[in-house]
Amino acid sequence: MNAENYFISTFCSSKTHIGDDGAAIGKWIYSKDLFFENIHFKRKWLTPYQIGYKAMIINISDAVAMNAVPKYALLGAAMPKSMSLHQMDELSRGIRTAASEYGIEIIGGDTIGNSKLDLSVTIISHAANPLLRRGLKRGDIIAYTGEIGKSAKQLRYLMSGGSVHTQSRFVAPKLRQSFIAEARPYLRCGMDISDGLFSDIEKLCRANRMGVRFTKKVPKKIGCSGEEYEMLIAFSPRRLQTLRRIAAQNRTTITPVARAVRGSYTNRCKAHHF
Amino acid sequence: MNAENYFISTFCSSKTHIGDDGAAIGKWIYSKDLFFENIHFKRKWLTPYQIGYKAMIINISDAVAMNAVPKYALLGAAMPKSMSLHQMDELSRGIRTAASEYGIEIIGGDTIGNSKLDLSVTIISHAANPLLRRGLKRGDIIAYTGEIGKSAKQLRYLMSGGSVHTQSRFVAPKLRQSFIAEARPYLRCGMDISDGLFSDIEKLCRANRMGVRFTKKVPKKIGCSGEEYEMLIAFSPRRLQTLRRIAAQNRTTITPVARAVRGSYTNRCKAHHF
Repeated sequence: MNAENYFISTFCSSKTHIGDDGAAIGKWIYSKDLFFENIHFKRKWLTPYQIGYKAMIINISDAVAMNAVPKYALLGAAMPKSMSLHQMDELSRGIRTAASEYGIEIIGGDTIGNSKLDLSVTIISHAANPLLRRGLKRGDIIAYTGEIGKSAKQLRYLMSGGSVHTQSRFVAPKLRQSFIAEARPYLRCGMDISDGLFSDIEKLCRANRMGVRFTKKVPKKIGCSGEEYEMLIAFSPRRLQTLRRIAAQNRTTITPVARAVRGSYTNRCKAHHF
Repeated sequence: MNAENYFISTFCSSKTHIGDDGAAIGKWIYSKDLFFENIHFKRKWLTPYQIGYKAMIINISDAVAMNAVPKYALLGAAMPKSMSLHQMDELSRGIRTAASEYGIEIIGGDTIGNSKLDLSVTIISHAANPLLRRGLKRGDIIAYTGEIGKSAKQLRYLMSGGSVHTQSRFVAPKLRQSFIAEARPYLRCGMDISDGLFSDIEKLCRANRMGVRFTKKVPKKIGCSGEEYEMLIAFSPRRLQTLRRIAAQNRTTITPVARAVRGSYTNRCKAHHF
């Protein structure tokens, strides 16, 4: 267990809801993610607009992954004194653009001066039929949506001094909101792939106290690629055709990678933060 | 307008609820505050336990100031890699102690490695009869609870290399929960004094588009002392005796400082963050 997971574990009790992308209280889902300079991004990689936009999208992803409709956001913004008003405007415009795309109202927050640009976003969402991490059954197919591995490739470009397209997944992840909404009745459980395919399969296994048998060979550079924001889903094999059709209707694909089996699974990727 | 207020203003619209200590959506109040190393505290001043405790209390203060009952918390913790497991345990214990004192369940959050210890807390509270910043009427008395100025004094000790008592207000602010709950029917509006008496009177004035006439001379070193976490309240003069009695029953005092008048008010303190 790494230090971060250890810290989280100190808060776990039978009463807490920690573990899913968001915490469910009645029909409301609460999720919170940090988006910190030099941890999740470098300022030379992204414009202030892109930083604001992505900070929101990675948080909205938690809600969408649970089949919840994001409604409100609280914003914590720690900003370097060196940021110009124009840069602040651009950061704000990125945040507001993402909020507007998903129908989110920004209701409050806290803003301070800081040594670097660190954002913290809380999203309040409504879920009539939430998709949770638990519910996996033996024999279920575990699959991912879309293509993965691109984000890691883009990250390698950026780290070696290159730049990436403004519509790239690393800059502006696309979320699978409509697919999840339509697929929900046929899914056992699911979550977004934020830490990497292997790492998130491990989380799914732990939540269900099960293991996996891989049915498709996944190269390490793809399986360990973080920040993909595609979906990891599990379902009964007899739902595969239905889900493939729903995926196609929503302009994505699903790729089965494993079957749920007894046991446990531990991934071998290194932590993806730089 | 400073840079932080400018940034906040970019999100304001007629629909948003920005301005109060927390945002009200139906009977739920959402508040979020950052508690960042070298901005709000230095690690040599406070133990990890005290940092965790205070991070929670300053957030709970926003809820209590609105006469809301805090129920749930989401935690964002960015921690230096150099923190030991013992220090994490202590940080967690401080957070859990404050949560337990106020009956709060920690339902989720995000934890990352970072260059310094930065905490972000979101509190979800329930308010049957919230106390807001708006509602001030001409002639109303503006007063504060308890004693103010101590926090600034303790901060001066700490900045000059001294230490303060573990039960001091700087380390462990006491909130006026029971007083506010009982006084609510007699109050027009109120907020907690987090930035300083003068600065927060200015916010109250702005929220109500009014000014103040001071009725008590307040030295600058008291009026500009931040992080007091006492309450700023406003009420009709005919409620003064009732409120003095409620204050006494709750082991505090109220000190009238000003009357609400037409006009506006601008404070002359410098920003209190170091």
